[in-house]
Amino acid sequence: MLISFEGIDGCGKSTQARLLAEALRAEGREVVLTREPGGSPGAEEIRRLLVEGAGERWSPETECLLFTAARRDHLERTIRPALAAGHTVVTDRFADSTRVYQGAARGDLRDLVDRLHGLMIGIEPDRSFVIDIDPATGLQRGAARGGAEDRFESLGLGFQERLATGFRALAREYPDRVRLIDGRGTPDQVAARIRAAL
Amino acid sequence: MLISFEGIDGCGKSTQARLLAEALRAEGREVVLTREPGGSPGAEEIRRLLVEGAGERWSPETECLLFTAARRDHLERTIRPALAAGHTVVTDRFADSTRVYQGAARGDLRDLVDRLHGLMIGIEPDRSFVIDIDPATGLQRGAARGGAEDRFESLGLGFQERLATGFRALAREYPDRVRLIDGRGTPDQVAARIRAAL
Repeated sequence: MLISFEGIDGCGKSTQARLLAEALRAEGREVVLTREPGGSPGAEEIRRLLVEGAGERWSPETECLLFTAARRDHLERTIRPALAAGHTVVTDRFADSTRVYQGAARGDLRDLVDRLHGLMIGIEPDRSFVIDIDPATGLQRGAARGGAEDRFESLGLGFQERLATGFRALAREYPDRVRLIDGRGTPDQVAARIRAAL
Repeated sequence: MLISFEGIDGCGKSTQARLLAEALRAEGREVVLTREPGGSPGAEEIRRLLVEGAGERWSPETECLLFTAARRDHLERTIRPALAAGHTVVTDRFADSTRVYQGAARGDLRDLVDRLHGLMIGIEPDRSFVIDIDPATGLQRGAARGGAEDRFESLGLGFQERLATGFRALAREYPDRVRLIDGRGTPDQVAARIRAAL
């Protein structure tokens, strides 16, 4: 089973991915907790090109290609081997992030994103959770975290608002797969909503 | 006008690209001499991921995506602006290298390479020169050059032979655009053959 967590920067999805992985392990499952961009040695190297540096460093089209390259490596070297071994894979971001970040919020490239996904990736998670929070809150949390990985946050509040709108639209577009989770409250409160929806 | 030089490692195409650029400049043309992977600041960063390290570092599919990402950046930031300004662009490698390296010699991915090219790049050079030499000679020259950029050379003589066969086939496939140039002799002798074919 492949489970993805999605949402804007600072929404709490990394915490929730970790909490779900811990809960599933406590039930005796073998769980691989991973992330995108990254999740394999090669994809982590591509990650640096994507999440650091100036916002306009890449066009949305080049960005799509780099995210898809990282996803292909992650799929081949981490996700597929884990699923083949019968493990559960919990990933902090997957293809929905590209649909929203490059396909909706940066350029009107959704058709291109879908064609590239169909050509090079093909699979979807069994279940995806979008953690929904106020964009200004997310941006504050991201800024508080610090570090060099602030390329997307540097695109500003208007960009975060377009992302939040895009993720909500995605939950309506894929009602069987995607669950929109209220991200307000403590991590344990949000985790309880996720377990109820799994 | 966009002119590309293609061929196996060590065939002399970088030297010939430079000699042609110098000759065209001597005739009063504005010439941008560039290369792939690379040719723009972002694409040069992607280059390091592609030409250094172990041969099996990336699958052929991931490699295609990384080459296409670098080419897209090169096209947007170097090639298209130069062509729009009326300059001649001479590039050391372009899409034909991906057709042969990933599409023929590493995996049977030619259909995938063509679809990715159609989706993300689209253009072809006005003229392409394939410098044809003996694969063992090319490999010796590449090894003599040293340096860290030996990832493709590390795949061995059998790989270089498949590449040479692939480039010859490409010249037959695109007879209007691609000229196969005998790479034996001095650089000036080869340059004279290229000028005659331009």
